[in-house]
Amino acid sequence: MDILIKSGNIITASETYTADILIEGEKISAIGKGLQTNANTKIIDAEGMNVLPGGVDVHTHFDLPMFGTVSSDDHYTGHKAAAYGGTTTVIDFIPQDEHELLKNVETWHKKVAEKAAIDYSFHMNITTFDDQIAHEIPNLKREGINSLKVFTAYNDRLRLTDGEIYQVLRIAKDNGMLVMVHAENGDVIELLVKEALAKGNTSPEWHAYTRPASGASESVNRVISLAEQTGAPLYIVHMNTKGGVDHVRNARLSGLPIMGETCPQYLFFTAEDLKKEDGAKWICSPPMRLKADNEGMWKAVSDGTMQVIATDHCPFFYDGTKPINYEGKEIAIPGKELGKEDFTKIPNGLPAVGDRLLILWSFGVGSGRITPNKFVQLTSTDPAKIFGLYPKKGTILPGSDADITIWDPEKEINYGVAYSQHRTDYNLFEGWNLKGVVDKVFLRGKLIVDGSVWSGKRGMGKFIFRNDIVVV
Amino acid sequence: MDILIKSGNIITASETYTADILIEGEKISAIGKGLQTNANTKIIDAEGMNVLPGGVDVHTHFDLPMFGTVSSDDHYTGHKAAAYGGTTTVIDFIPQDEHELLKNVETWHKKVAEKAAIDYSFHMNITTFDDQIAHEIPNLKREGINSLKVFTAYNDRLRLTDGEIYQVLRIAKDNGMLVMVHAENGDVIELLVKEALAKGNTSPEWHAYTRPASGASESVNRVISLAEQTGAPLYIVHMNTKGGVDHVRNARLSGLPIMGETCPQYLFFTAEDLKKEDGAKWICSPPMRLKADNEGMWKAVSDGTMQVIATDHCPFFYDGTKPINYEGKEIAIPGKELGKEDFTKIPNGLPAVGDRLLILWSFGVGSGRITPNKFVQLTSTDPAKIFGLYPKKGTILPGSDADITIWDPEKEINYGVAYSQHRTDYNLFEGWNLKGVVDKVFLRGKLIVDGSVWSGKRGMGKFIFRNDIVVV
Amino acid sequence: MDILIKSGNIITASETYTADILIEGEKISAIGKGLQTNANTKIIDAEGMNVLPGGVDVHTHFDLPMFGTVSSDDHYTGHKAAAYGGTTTVIDFIPQDEHELLKNVETWHKKVAEKAAIDYSFHMNITTFDDQIAHEIPNLKREGINSLKVFTAYNDRLRLTDGEIYQVLRIAKDNGMLVMVHAENGDVIELLVKEALAKGNTSPEWHAYTRPASGASESVNRVISLAEQTGAPLYIVHMNTKGGVDHVRNARLSGLPIMGETCPQYLFFTAEDLKKEDGAKWICSPPMRLKADNEGMWKAVSDGTMQVIATDHCPFFYDGTKPINYEGKEIAIPGKELGKEDFTKIPNGLPAVGDRLLILWSFGVGSGRITPNKFVQLTSTDPAKIFGLYPKKGTILPGSDADITIWDPEKEINYGVAYSQHRTDYNLFEGWNLKGVVDKVFLRGKLIVDGSVWSGKRGMGKFIFRNDIVVV
Amino acid sequence: MDILIKSGNIITASETYTADILIEGEKISAIGKGLQTNANTKIIDAEGMNVLPGGVDVHTHFDLPMFGTVSSDDHYTGHKAAAYGGTTTVIDFIPQDEHELLKNVETWHKKVAEKAAIDYSFHMNITTFDDQIAHEIPNLKREGINSLKVFTAYNDRLRLTDGEIYQVLRIAKDNGMLVMVHAENGDVIELLVKEALAKGNTSPEWHAYTRPASGASESVNRVISLAEQTGAPLYIVHMNTKGGVDHVRNARLSGLPIMGETCPQYLFFTAEDLKKEDGAKWICSPPMRLKADNEGMWKAVSDGTMQVIATDHCPFFYDGTKPINYEGKEIAIPGKELGKEDFTKIPNGLPAVGDRLLILWSFGVGSGRITPNKFVQLTSTDPAKIFGLYPKKGTILPGSDADITIWDPEKEINYGVAYSQHRTDYNLFEGWNLKGVVDKVFLRGKLIVDGSVWSGKRGMGKFIFRNDIVVV
Repeated sequence: MDILIKSGNIITASETYTADILIEGEKISAIGKGLQTNANTKIIDAEGMNVLPGGVDVHTHFDLPMFGTVSSDDHYTGHKAAAYGGTTTVIDFIPQDEHELLKNVETWHKKVAEKAAIDYSFHMNITTFDDQIAHEIPNLKREGINSLKVFTAYNDRLRLTDGEIYQVLRIAKDNGMLVMVHAENGDVIELLVKEALAKGNTSPEWHAYTRPASGASESVNRVISLAEQTGAPLYIVHMNTKGGVDHVRNARLSGLPIMGETCPQYLFFTAEDLKKEDGAKWICSPPMRLKADNEGMWKAVSDGTMQVIATDHCPFFYDGTKPINYEGKEIAIPGKELGKEDFTKIPNGLPAVGDRLLILWSFGVGSGRITPNKFVQLTSTDPAKIFGLYPKKGTILPGSDADITIWDPEKEINYGVAYSQHRTDYNLFEGWNLKGVVDKVFLRGKLIVDGSVWSGKRGMGKFIFRNDIVVV
Repeated sequence: MDILIKSGNIITASETYTADILIEGEKISAIGKGLQTNANTKIIDAEGMNVLPGGVDVHTHFDLPMFGTVSSDDHYTGHKAAAYGGTTTVIDFIPQDEHELLKNVETWHKKVAEKAAIDYSFHMNITTFDDQIAHEIPNLKREGINSLKVFTAYNDRLRLTDGEIYQVLRIAKDNGMLVMVHAENGDVIELLVKEALAKGNTSPEWHAYTRPASGASESVNRVISLAEQTGAPLYIVHMNTKGGVDHVRNARLSGLPIMGETCPQYLFFTAEDLKKEDGAKWICSPPMRLKADNEGMWKAVSDGTMQVIATDHCPFFYDGTKPINYEGKEIAIPGKELGKEDFTKIPNGLPAVGDRLLILWSFGVGSGRITPNKFVQLTSTDPAKIFGLYPKKGTILPGSDADITIWDPEKEINYGVAYSQHRTDYNLFEGWNLKGVVDKVFLRGKLIVDGSVWSGKRGMGKFIFRNDIVVV
Repeated sequence: MDILIKSGNIITASETYTADILIEGEKISAIGKGLQTNANTKIIDAEGMNVLPGGVDVHTHFDLPMFGTVSSDDHYTGHKAAAYGGTTTVIDFIPQDEHELLKNVETWHKKVAEKAAIDYSFHMNITTFDDQIAHEIPNLKREGINSLKVFTAYNDRLRLTDGEIYQVLRIAKDNGMLVMVHAENGDVIELLVKEALAKGNTSPEWHAYTRPASGASESVNRVISLAEQTGAPLYIVHMNTKGGVDHVRNARLSGLPIMGETCPQYLFFTAEDLKKEDGAKWICSPPMRLKADNEGMWKAVSDGTMQVIATDHCPFFYDGTKPINYEGKEIAIPGKELGKEDFTKIPNGLPAVGDRLLILWSFGVGSGRITPNKFVQLTSTDPAKIFGLYPKKGTILPGSDADITIWDPEKEINYGVAYSQHRTDYNLFEGWNLKGVVDKVFLRGKLIVDGSVWSGKRGMGKFIFRNDIVVV
Repeated sequence: MDILIKSGNIITASETYTADILIEGEKISAIGKGLQTNANTKIIDAEGMNVLPGGVDVHTHFDLPMFGTVSSDDHYTGHKAAAYGGTTTVIDFIPQDEHELLKNVETWHKKVAEKAAIDYSFHMNITTFDDQIAHEIPNLKREGINSLKVFTAYNDRLRLTDGEIYQVLRIAKDNGMLVMVHAENGDVIELLVKEALAKGNTSPEWHAYTRPASGASESVNRVISLAEQTGAPLYIVHMNTKGGVDHVRNARLSGLPIMGETCPQYLFFTAEDLKKEDGAKWICSPPMRLKADNEGMWKAVSDGTMQVIATDHCPFFYDGTKPINYEGKEIAIPGKELGKEDFTKIPNGLPAVGDRLLILWSFGVGSGRITPNKFVQLTSTDPAKIFGLYPKKGTILPGSDADITIWDPEKEINYGVAYSQHRTDYNLFEGWNLKGVVDKVFLRGKLIVDGSVWSGKRGMGKFIFRNDIVVV
């Protein structure tokens, strides 16, 4: 049965217009004025509604082991929360737990395939490097994985040396792959953390104090230099400092293929939030910064310095000793309470995959900071283009996957943990009033969210084989 | 009879995809994969061809009296040349010959209506200002004219004082209109011209030497400051200095609604060209600059500092004493030869309306400086948005006017006056080899150019009533 | 009789050291350790005291007619106040009241010669320009006057057009003279003032609101462009906007010979002060700006963007209806009260010549914003160098005029009108606590100020013939 | 016996004037006009000559073991060459050959004391770091050593980690010491060197290709960030990239206490020189860069971004198999020929200590790039201030050491190895024509160079105990 989404206000990265969308099977087959239908066509009246491409979140960590526990959304619950929030494709990171890269890919495929409720792909972390890894990286491309993540922080755990990053960049360039980098200065962090603990500074705000913004900004410049020397494009994840985006802006203005991502949390919160009684809720890495950094990020988002807003979704329970009800069952997963006595033991991460689009629509578009077209570009089209998902994903065009969200622009709600669908016990945006929310979500032509009704299913999400990356 | 453009490679400001376009009447009615047709549908096979929205040239001067002659393209010949070059909408400037604004509008409507072969609109020059003009400006909006042009140069002829420009900006802001400015320092030009002539420096290159780039750059900063003080948006025409675009870039980075336009001639030629024997061909205002300025403009075009590439089309015969054959008749119009003995008497302007898209495709897209999407954005979508023509013009969407160009991406030609259709005796791009040219042009669903065949007609072009301007 | 200033802490623009200074006649003859003296040598023990070159204030307006009154310090009272504040040389502006320049010079010489109590020179205002003036300007150099002031504001009164300023710059360059410019946008000011009065906005703060900072900043860029085109050096007076000094900084970093001056009032006060009941006290042009501008000026002062701190001293009585006692006589001069009902009638200007060094020492050096050497450079050495007074003035060297100030670095006072010696009824720095004040002042070897004792005399000041200007 | 230098043209960092200088013992006792003398005073007529403070070269490597040989000037021959070139104080680097810092200091004292012919001090290299070193660093201050050098390059030999540098900076700040840094990216260099050799790229230009400018620039930003985080001042040695000085300029404009040094070789030569047959002569680290970098350095020197021009003097024979005659003896020391087959074995360094002032005077002052005062500031006064030698060294003032150079401004010579006094077989400035050369040099009142006559002696140079560093 075909579907006709009738008379919606279609919003893409550059256009806003009213038309009908005809879906045949998993694809959009036509867009037009007064498109003809037949008896088998299911008609969805979208007059007065906004119709956007499904969101693409290129930075998630589902079911990720950390500090003796695991991020509390798995590849089903996280996908479901994403879908409720209007996101239909996610890209998750594969840790390099085993040395051989493809083994890790295999593990991750197994972990996800049966659970996936929306479409997905993977980035591969490169956290050890040697000749064998150098040799294996190109093989990832044949697996449909064209993006690699490296770290300048987490000494002795995840960090590569500058020289190793240089080599990964060179290999990536030669193979049409994209290097993503977590840019902080690992040395200084390690030192400050040790000193903080030695002085008994164990409360959550020390997480921020021990990870200085200047080191993040410096590291951004450093990896840009490494990329410049190799000619490789570069993508910097979860940027959150004014100094850092200034480096990216300068690099782009000088013609370098440098791209950057930020996340909703870095647009709204500051290190002050970590001083609250429940400050552990805001613990993630890099940490919250200053108000001036929030402003710097908004500027970078609106002037094109940042191309992507993703989430770095990696939720933990605030109090993992108290169960919550999830799909009818009681569940509790150890979380932030693990670090009650020591901020270095608080699992790093927070829920966001479902919040992203809703929060940005009300507080980005609604506040006039970005246009609706820019919203689509940042959260769907450009991430899809960069990582090789476009035009299958990231837009509304004939031939594209029918991943479509229908938004009620007038509906107002009070947001928070009770509304969002993350499998955790808190939400950072608790109590925020939103105007304009997701009403329906289609994944490849199937209606998986309809108001509060969930029709998605474990296993219906597909792995998306990705091709060449694109510099935007 | 409906038309189906089948399987073309559709290129818009942000998307590239393959689909069919169905045209019903003057409008695009649907875009899709395998759209159904009936016996009455004329099918145009566009497989392997690029399908773009018709070009929008927001800066033309047809039939403009100057220096005792007139620009050699009128509103028919100029429209025809534009169409051959893929442009389907132009905006022409109305001189304020009579004090009362609407009288000038009326004059221009009369001049154009019977001749127009493509769609058109008008900008209104404001070259004298007083309380009456202040009072009349808002009336233009009711005539569908939302843009005003002012000059900081041409003392005692066209120039307004800074204080008058400030007032025009304020009125424009209050009425949702856009001020366009020709920014050069009139005082210094006047002085240098007088001195050059006094010293017997009369050859064409003195046109460039007497109009310094620093004065153009300074004036850009000056009008940005005036706009900033009023809160009005601003559009700077025919920018061509590195210094000037640096001011625009800084203004935009600081959040000001400042926009800028350049023209093909300023991307390729320099003041050196004025030293050639036939240097008069390159005489226009502002004059050609340095190679470094060409580079600065390309950078500004590719990094988003410039939003529009228009033409400032204002052609003259190089030798108006020798007739050319035009539509079967001999025609000669006095031109550049008028200033043989005195560069200040050389009519200012050059042919460009038909060259713009062809040259930019081969030497902008073809050379890798801009993407095909950026090409569409600069030459069609953004100009249409800024001046209130969008989404009627400037894009390919259901509901939009069926102004469509079909390009043969593989066809190679040797360009020049024999190929272009301007009513003049020379072309600046003589002998340039192009790859990728316009094959068919539709104006509101009518095929007006088909290869070398012209089916357009005088009077078929319509005046487009424009609404609110948009800051991009 | 020779004088030996013994064991003082000598501070110059680049050195700080302890030594004796021997004065023979009007000159410093030697500086040394343990210099030998004879019976005729008067010894002044300066141990523990700071010994600095006399201040050079290159921007004063004594006895200047304005708005039907006159600035309340004449060339005697103003010199005396300057001397008490540690300044031993001033440069005053000659208005172009008569068309012929040298006549004005003659007038000013007559006005000053009998009154002068410290050394002085003149700048010449150029407020009308024609061929005759162009011809006369070089003659000023033969009179020892090498600096010309022009205005971009005060339409129809003082303003030259951009083209005229361009010509003045060219003449100055050809004759080794320096153009000084008052940079505001005259057009916008004129318009806003007219509109403010029409709306009944007559209170002092409207003086600030009608002279926008953006116009001042724009004008700075404009005159820099004019200077750049002529190759002439340029000196911008009384700068007070962050935007303006950013233009100067950029110009200097690109190698242009652009220099700038600010004044104490622009480092400490804002437009908010004009809202006070006695806001008229702060009325001068350009007006006070924002806190961010104060900060911008301090940065420009400390990073070398500004080379000079002068005063623009031009005092008026706050209430010219109430006499004050001056040297034993009652005196009242109409002042700020003239504009009680209309801010445009408030005489523009304020007392400062005596405050400058005292305030800057306590709140510039004392607060750590500038070093003692920088203090000397900004207030004595660089102004002397720029305007051709050096090394006669502006430093402590063998052969230099013995213009020397001895400061007591530990003495604390409460400053204000009762302490300062201006002939007016108020002081902007009323009640400020200072640490470090002038104790003794020598003018060409004569002790003219000794604590509170004044030994200066009318007529003892000499006109200083100035030679080539210097770009610093 | 006293000395009177009569009627010379005295040039200091900020003043130029004519006066006599009286030297009593080792000190300047007075400066004056027509200073009186007695029968015991030796009078040196300096009329028409320039009189400058002796040069201070804060970056030398005498008698430094490297690559199986040693730098060919020892602490006598190098001092003598320095003196001939007008330099009277040097600061040499102590390698951390033994772990305990003070042992190395002791070694260096022994090495130098008997040889020193001019005054000297030491910087201490910190090339391994642990708690013991952290503890020992403050002890250096008691030895009169207040400066520490660290490296971001030379992995596994000299490099400290970022975290270690951070700690050294913190200790330095707490103890009023200054950290100097050699800033290149060690990782990338190591990798590129290995790859170059593997590919058989062994000729001298590969020294430049394997040490990218971008890595140097990045490292500068990195160490600035580390300094910013600790609040410590920072001094970056031998800067030679446009990108690097841009970082320093920005840091200084934002108020950070960052300082930089360049060397003559980086103002005149490029990587192209390494391609010459005798390219090994130009091998030093960091390597020669591009013409654009030379220009960037000149700009940085003239706009105040760089405060010091030193030399990094570390000479080697070009052909150490052929003896030269030095003070009457044949001497040969293995040199550049060691790396004939492998650029990594070419000793890094070149002769410069004697060239510095002569070359800079003719090609810096003589060419108009810097003023004579700036020359003194860069080569004597500011280095003396920064490292705590001032006002004993670095200026001409009563009480200062009588380290004085007398220059003949009109004398012209053809420069090169035959004129300079380095103990090596080549000179980079061979054949350059100089105008203005050192005629006489006084060290603490003793005439050690008089034209071509050398009166200096081994052991007459004194170690200078240094106090607090100063940020300029």
